[in-house]
Order: sequence, then C-alpha cells, then structure tokens
Amino acid sequence: MKNILTTAVVFLSLNLFGQTKEDSIQFSRISTEILNKGKSYNELKDLTKNIGHRLSGSEAYEKSVKWAEQKLKEAGADKVWLQEVMIPVWERGKESLKIKAGNGKWKSLKMLSLGNSEGTQGKDIFGEIIMVKSLAEYDKLSPEQVKNKIVFFNYPFSQSYIQTFKAYSDAAVYRSTAASLTAKKGGKFAIVRSLSSAYDDVPHTGAMRYGDSEKIPAVAIGNTTADELESLLKSQKITAKLNSNCGMKAEKLSHSVIGEITGNKDKSVIVVGGHLDSWDVGEGAHDDGAGIVQSIEVLRTFKNLGIKNNHTIRVVCFANEENGLKGGLQYGKTVNENSEKHLFALESDAGGFSPRGIALEMDDAKISQIKSWSPLFIPYGAYDFEGRYSGADISPLKAMGVPTAELVPDSQRYFDIHHTDEDTFEKVNRRELLLGATIMTQMIYMIDKNW
Amino acid sequence: MKNILTTAVVFLSLNLFGQTKEDSIQFSRISTEILNKGKSYNELKDLTKNIGHRLSGSEAYEKSVKWAEQKLKEAGADKVWLQEVMIPVWERGKESLKIKAGNGKWKSLKMLSLGNSEGTQGKDIFGEIIMVKSLAEYDKLSPEQVKNKIVFFNYPFSQSYIQTFKAYSDAAVYRSTAASLTAKKGGKFAIVRSLSSAYDDVPHTGAMRYGDSEKIPAVAIGNTTADELESLLKSQKITAKLNSNCGMKAEKLSHSVIGEITGNKDKSVIVVGGHLDSWDVGEGAHDDGAGIVQSIEVLRTFKNLGIKNNHTIRVVCFANEENGLKGGLQYGKTVNENSEKHLFALESDAGGFSPRGIALEMDDAKISQIKSWSPLFIPYGAYDFEGRYSGADISPLKAMGVPTAELVPDSQRYFDIHHTDEDTFEKVNRRELLLGATIMTQMIYMIDKNW
Repeated sequence: MKNILTTAVVFLSLNLFGQTKEDSIQFSRISTEILNKGKSYNELKDLTKNIGHRLSGSEAYEKSVKWAEQKLKEAGADKVWLQEVMIPVWERGKESLKIKAGNGKWKSLKMLSLGNSEGTQGKDIFGEIIMVKSLAEYDKLSPEQVKNKIVFFNYPFSQSYIQTFKAYSDAAVYRSTAASLTAKKGGKFAIVRSLSSAYDDVPHTGAMRYGDSEKIPAVAIGNTTADELESLLKSQKITAKLNSNCGMKAEKLSHSVIGEITGNKDKSVIVVGGHLDSWDVGEGAHDDGAGIVQSIEVLRTFKNLGIKNNHTIRVVCFANEENGLKGGLQYGKTVNENSEKHLFALESDAGGFSPRGIALEMDDAKISQIKSWSPLFIPYGAYDFEGRYSGADISPLKAMGVPTAELVPDSQRYFDIHHTDEDTFEKVNRRELLLGATIMTQMIYMIDKNW
Repeated sequence: MKNILTTAVVFLSLNLFGQTKEDSIQFSRISTEILNKGKSYNELKDLTKNIGHRLSGSEAYEKSVKWAEQKLKEAGADKVWLQEVMIPVWERGKESLKIKAGNGKWKSLKMLSLGNSEGTQGKDIFGEIIMVKSLAEYDKLSPEQVKNKIVFFNYPFSQSYIQTFKAYSDAAVYRSTAASLTAKKGGKFAIVRSLSSAYDDVPHTGAMRYGDSEKIPAVAIGNTTADELESLLKSQKITAKLNSNCGMKAEKLSHSVIGEITGNKDKSVIVVGGHLDSWDVGEGAHDDGAGIVQSIEVLRTFKNLGIKNNHTIRVVCFANEENGLKGGLQYGKTVNENSEKHLFALESDAGGFSPRGIALEMDDAKISQIKSWSPLFIPYGAYDFEGRYSGADISPLKAMGVPTAELVPDSQRYFDIHHTDEDTFEKVNRRELLLGATIMTQMIYMIDKNW
C-alpha cells in the first residue's frame, strides 16, 4: 500500500520537473526501434540452430564464445574481450533406467541423469525402489530401510503458486540433495520427480551436489512417468536398473565474453548480461540464449539510437552458470582486483517471455527511486518491481554491494521446458523476446541517466 | 496518476472495513481450486481435437452445441438450454491463387479467401496486380487505373504497438473493405496482406463485408508471401489467377448454448461467456475455445467451492460471433423481450494467454469501484483495468446499458495465429488458460458479492 502511494507522489514530482516527458519519448524510441528492427530473435535462431545446446567444456560452448564475441562486435561494442575462467566439465554419455515388477519384463523409463551426478561407469546397478513424498518422510527412514535400495523422491512441483519460480524454489532441494541423502543411509541411487510444471513425460535435468557424501547417481523422471511409478508402487515391489556413463572430468580453461560501450562522463560500469552456457539438452533457448541476445540488444539499441551513455555499459555473457557459476565468480573477483566501480547489474535469466517487471536487490532508497519510474514502464507491460532477488551470475557483485536486478518475464511456461529437450527456439515468441529486451534497455537508460 | 491514488485510498478503506481479508482468502481458494483441479484445459483438448474448427452452419458447430450443453451439465449448472438463432452460412470449398511474371510459369501462393467473400464459382479470374500501401494511396487511383485489375492492399500490421489489438484495429479496415473498394473502381478481386504479427507465410482469414458494392472476391496472403509479391512488383508486371468456390448459402436455424446457477438472493443475471463458433481453419483453440472452457470453469468453480451466488450466474456460449454476431444479437433481443435484469457481462475472447487485467465499459463510478479491488488481483497478475472495451457478443447488452467487460490476456502471441491453421490446442498453455479462468472467477465473485 505504502509503496503505491510513494510511487504516485514521486511520479507527480517527476512531472513537475518535466523529466517524465523526455523519458517517455526515449522509452517510445527504444520500444519502436527494438520491436521493428531488433536482431535478438534472429540471433537467437542462429545460436540455437547453428550451435545448439552448449554445456561448459563442450565444443559447442567454445563455438558460442566465438559467436558472442562476433555478435558484440557487430552490435557496435567499443571493446570486446574474453575473460579467462576455469570451468568444471561434466559429461553425460549413454544412460538408461529400467524398471520391472516382480519377475516381469524390464521397461525403459524416459530419464535424464542430473547434472554433476556421477554415473554407474557403464555397469548395471539394481535395487528395489522405495518411495518417499517428502524430506520429512525420508528423515523417518532408518539406514536399514534404505540400505541397498533406490530412493524415489516423489515430491510434486506445486501448481498453486502464481509465480512458478516459487514452486521451483520449494522443490529444488530434492534435485540438489536426493543423491547425498540417499548415500548417507546406504542407498544405491536416487530418482527424483522433475521440477516441472507440465503434465508430460519430459525429464528435467539441472545441477545437484554431493557435499561430503558418497557420490552415488541421481536421475530425474518426468511427471507422468513419476505418476505411473507411484501408481505401480502402491500394489507391488518394483526393481530398478540404472546404467549410465556420466561424471565429472578434469577442469578446463574457458571464457566469459564481454563487450562494452565506454561511458561518456565516467568509466563506472553498468552490467547487463545472461549466461552463455546451457544444459546439454534442447537448445538452451529460453535458458539462457534469450538473456544473451537480449543483453546484446541493449547495447545495439544505445548505439543505433545514438543515446550517449554517461557510464560504461557492459554486456557480460557469463560462462558456466548452470553447473558451477565460475563465470560469475571470476567476473566478481576481477572487478574486485581491479577496484572497478560498478553502479548496477541487470541479468536476464528467467526466460524470453513477455516481461512483467524487474526484481530489485539494493537499498530501500534505490528501490524507491526505481519504483518511482514505474509509470513510465507500465505502458510496456512492466508493473512488477516487488521481487527482491536477482540473477545468479551477478550474485558476487551483489555480495560486493553493487545494486543488482533481474528481468521478470511471465513465468507460466518456463518450468514446462526448463532444462529439457523442449527448450528450443520454437518455444520463444519474437515479440515477447523483443519486449523483454525493450524493458531491459529502458531500465539501463534510466539508471545510466539518473545514477 | 489520479487512478493510482484513488486505488490506494479505496484499498485502505476496504482494509478498514475488514473485507479485504475475506476476499483475499476467497481469491486464494479460487486460484488453488482452478490451478490444481481446473478442467478447462482438458475440455479444450476435447473440443479442439474431437470436434475441431466449427464455423457457423457446419456439422462441427452442431456437434459443439451438444458438447457445450453436456459440459455445462457436468459443471453443475442448475439449468441448461439452447437459444434459437438464425445464422448465416458461408462455405469455403476449394481455392487457389497463382501468379506469374510476364510469360513465366504460374506459381501457387498460400492463401485463404476472406470470410463471407464470394468466390469465382470454380472459374479462373485473371488480371494484372496493382499494389497500394494504404487507403490514401488507393483513393488517388482513378477507376481507369483499377479497371479489370487485381488490387493488392499491402498495408503492414504495425509492430510498434505494445498491445497488438491496436495494430489489429489499425489494419482491420483493409480486410473488411478491400473487396468493396476494389469493386467500386471496377477491379476484379482484392488481395490483402494478412492481419498478422508473425513473419511467416501463414494467411489469416476473418470477416469482410460488401456494403452496396458488387460482390467480388477478396483473399489474404501471409506476411512473407506479401513481402515476396511486393518485391516482385518492383521490377515487373505480375498477373494473378484466382479460382475459388466460396460463398454465402441460405441461413440456417442453429443455437447458442446457455447454462446457469440460480441466484440465492435474486434472479438478476451476471453473464460470463465466449463464442462457440470459430473460423473454418485450425482448431479455434485460442479463438475462442479458450473463452468457452474458461466460462464453464467459472460456473464449475462456484459449485465446487460451494460459493453461494447472490445473483444468477449464467454462462453463454454464443453462436456465430465470427461472421454475423447473430448469437449475441439474439441474446440481447431475448433479454430485452423478457425484461430480464442484467447486472454485468464478462466475455473472454482475446485468447487463452496469461491474464493481465480486465477491460471495463461502464459508468465511472462502477469503474472506480472495480479498480479499487485491484490490490486483490495484482498477486494473480491482473493489474490492468484501463481498457475501455468489451467483447463483441455482449455489445448488444452494452447498448442496453449493462456494464460489460472483457478479460485482457497478454496479447503478444495472439495475432501470430488468429484465424489461421495455427490456432491449435498445442498453442495454448495449461497454466495460462487456467490463470485466465481464475481472474474471471475472482471478478464474477466480486461483482456477485458487491452489486
């Protein structure tokens, strides 16, 4: 309530100062430029169809580094460079999960090993499946009950939240800890119900971690497959057999890609970015090809419209967000070492869907100032500035006190396709993607002008 | 600005009266019920896949009448009936459009005759194409310049508007009047660039009208086809050949489908609806299968949650919106004849996309009251109550002074698929559709409680 009143009053003040009209005209120029001449949609097609998915350490990722370097140059960056990053390398290889009831026949289940999981080194691992619906239920099981078993963590992705990221956060602990929890009670491997809002059989991969546990495998199955397994387990004992070849390899030297337009008043930096890597399935279109091409669109739009930027506007295409965050960590470390002043950092890593706002992590005064601009954004569909989070890649900057933010696209479709074979270019709508780039450019324009 | 302040102040008042909390709990119950147990997505699958497109007068439309009657009964309506409507019948038949340059070869273009257009009765019609970019340009042509020609109205669907319905309104006159304008200057037939936001070759049909002109044919071509034709015309004369069998047939008796739950306090009526008919291409999924299943979801949710409705809540599945509006007209006429008091009418006919608000056509006091409820809606993604329009089917009610409204879904994707082969079930997202039904139910709940 208070917030709405504050917004209203500050907007009146802006009107009095006559800034709103000038900004409103600039917002319209930005929108018209991007919706009519934006290149991000075609660039995303190029990235997804000619390079495809691009997990850290893969040949495709290295191609995407050269691709991003080229696109930043074409967009008009004054300076483009690669930042060295040591990245973890995880490879999937062949994998299969089969089940059978009693002495019946083996039946293959559609599955994906979770990212960073160790596999079975090409050997079959067998065991009886036991199912739990929650961590609380798992906690009640004794090591004797789990020993040599396969634990099926059957926790549903809640449909009740309006913002699907809340359902994702709610269920994420199952993906990240299923293997280590299972290992600690002597289980052989873990199966998790995918973090998926779709009622289909598509498995969703994503990062897991071991901590200090034995490194046993963890795999994900899709929602309808999980439903079937749950139903089978009600009436009979089910044996599972896993054979997989995934695992961590030696670290490699790779790169984040950075391009900037130098500030006309000073060299303090405004970052806009996304992550260049993706999981090793689908095409990494929404996650996060969208964020990459939108960030490049911001820079291109400043150049094409001849907007004189006061501060340096820097596009960062971060390496290795998905399974290590090494690009973000290295970027933060370098900023710190060079004592480079950063004013603001904005990430787009929630999909290329129709934008609804920008989430803000910064002090209250800055939040109030940005919210006072909301009447300028509302005609473009961005009304929600209430989120208090920001992108993972810029979390090291946030820890250093830099105000950080993230584009908030409509979230209804994201977890249907997140980390799956379905995250393809065809699932991205041109106008939605371009409108997201529009909101990002408008916000960077306001920050550059006012901070 | 004023509006935001008004909203804020009224919300504070609501808080003081303690109504907000009760309503907020009811909103959450509605949302949880629909997002978890809603049947509209599965019902839409049934309608689109088992019946498919359903133009007025077709056998499929008659099947959809029986289908809607059955679904309203299953949803728990106290009373379900069919309302007789005399509907126009237009049929497409086989059709082809070919072009050639000079003495070259004929090349087929992907096309659709516009709805209600007369065809060529299976004969070839030839002529040279002349292109105009606007009505202003066409107005400058003399009858001698147009005589025996084919006029290509090449007016672009603007990408600049944020709300794509504005681009649609802007360009709609070309679809509706191209044939009559061409006829009046002696042209043989008209070709229009589709009202399409997509850069593809998909033609979009939709209603045209003749007025007092000769009834010559009008056809639509997709954007990339229009681009190619435009390019060809720059350097050479192009001849076109049309052969089509479409045309109006004799009127038929058909029906709108109506179901209601009787008011507990009085029998005044709150209408919620969409149109049951569709164009004769695709599956009529977004247009307007979505509105039909969402409206039925509203009724079902009142029943399932045991919400006692003060007034009668009536679902109307209107006949013949697309090429005659006869269902809406007949409904209005019947209401008038029966002197049936109507409190409010809400239509969903802008696609089953993620909702952003509700457009309102009523007096200022009622608009202010509804806007005062917006803090309740914002957590569900509905923040936009600024639209001053409502659905076509309920325009006769509006003319009688009934407050009318329309669901405002995100519009970015709608005109990619509107009136095309691409308007299929697969283009509808489950959560987006259900969230639209949620906002509709919440609004009907507030109106029923407060009016």
